[in-house]
Amino acid sequence: MFKDSKMRTILKTISWRFTATLTTMMIVYIFTGQIETAIEVGLLEMVAKLLFYYFHERAWDKLRFGKVEVPPLVLWITGIPRSGKTTLGDMIYKELQKNKLKMQRLDSHDVRPLFPETGFTRDEVNNHIKRVGHLASMMEKNGIITIASFVSPFAESRDFVRKNCKNYVEVYLKTTADEVRVGHHYELYDKAEKGLIKDVAGMDVKYETSPDTEIVIETGNKSLEQAKDDIVRFIRKNHLKDL
Amino acid sequence: MFKDSKMRTILKTISWRFTATLTTMMIVYIFTGQIETAIEVGLLEMVAKLLFYYFHERAWDKLRFGKVEVPPLVLWITGIPRSGKTTLGDMIYKELQKNKLKMQRLDSHDVRPLFPETGFTRDEVNNHIKRVGHLASMMEKNGIITIASFVSPFAESRDFVRKNCKNYVEVYLKTTADEVRVGHHYELYDKAEKGLIKDVAGMDVKYETSPDTEIVIETGNKSLEQAKDDIVRFIRKNHLKDL
Repeated sequence: MFKDSKMRTILKTISWRFTATLTTMMIVYIFTGQIETAIEVGLLEMVAKLLFYYFHERAWDKLRFGKVEVPPLVLWITGIPRSGKTTLGDMIYKELQKNKLKMQRLDSHDVRPLFPETGFTRDEVNNHIKRVGHLASMMEKNGIITIASFVSPFAESRDFVRKNCKNYVEVYLKTTADEVRVGHHYELYDKAEKGLIKDVAGMDVKYETSPDTEIVIETGNKSLEQAKDDIVRFIRKNHLKDL
Repeated sequence: MFKDSKMRTILKTISWRFTATLTTMMIVYIFTGQIETAIEVGLLEMVAKLLFYYFHERAWDKLRFGKVEVPPLVLWITGIPRSGKTTLGDMIYKELQKNKLKMQRLDSHDVRPLFPETGFTRDEVNNHIKRVGHLASMMEKNGIITIASFVSPFAESRDFVRKNCKNYVEVYLKTTADEVRVGHHYELYDKAEKGLIKDVAGMDVKYETSPDTEIVIETGNKSLEQAKDDIVRFIRKNHLKDL
């Protein structure tokens, strides 16, 4: 919860007094035609109302009435390994920080202390994603904008997260393992190709698309910078329009 | 984040105008001695300043300067099974809700979807408590008052939580298995007595006290209602004094 500091109240008091006393002096001058009376009234009014206004502000700051919360959301970025989820999530986080909102970033390294290494079978991945979804919805209930980035290749667990959250926006970074490997050697994909590891999304595990996904970014056609701009515009328009 | 609703601004505008225009009229009367001029100035001032004040308020609501956060805390209630932790935690939660603060309750049933059943060995319990501590500190970083209630019999993991949180208050419900069993049959204790289960705090597992514990409640000498009052008073005095 936020409260006004005394300094905020003082500056606000002065900023209002400037506008208000000038108005009063003009009104008195209109009615009396006397510049001197206008100035005298203005001076006394200034002293009296600086005081009154300050205490009026402090009293209202104690009242919660009409303090409405900016509704939070869960932004869920999904896609095969190395599709750019973490980078994009970090960029969006940084951009939205300008609004001074409460935000929580959830990436695999953020949740590692909470959920120790889980396996890579379909069931294990689904359970892990559902747990992260519970956490995201706990954050959302507390007014925190949550930006999550997880491979989450199975529609079942993503839909579970969607159902658990109130405002859920899914971003799918659409690409293929072949595309992300152009010019790069990623150990994960190399090993999967040689059959040394299994359960790699984009290789032996097929990424399951959902019809409900709000934003699909074809990473071959769009830079992450452009994708960030599109997504931030979408969020500002649909979720943070009161800011 | 909270923003002022238009209705709040309108009511605040009116409440200020009442004080302010009366002041102006008195000042004008003092200087001119004319009740008519005082009323005319007051009327014109009222119309002009209702408008100006409204927009002045809306503009300041966009400014974040001087909006200071009420610092959150983690209240950690510990004690052997059936000592009253959950009940006390719920009572404190309910009492502090009156302050309209952001709060998260963490009890075993709240974290079950996040941390599937863990075991009861020393290591497993310590790991579980550390994970809950990570979660509590994540909540605290986001400005949420967190009220956690867990047996947490080992000083090591409680101290870990303490180190991970900025404002940490530990409440120990001091009692013995024999005391809580007076007039009750708790399956957990009965089974432990018969040697059917192990690792029960208060029976074969000794509860480890800490020298740092902020509040120790001897449940034999104090009702939970009195304990709640003491703890809420402690929190209001030491952590929520600006409210």
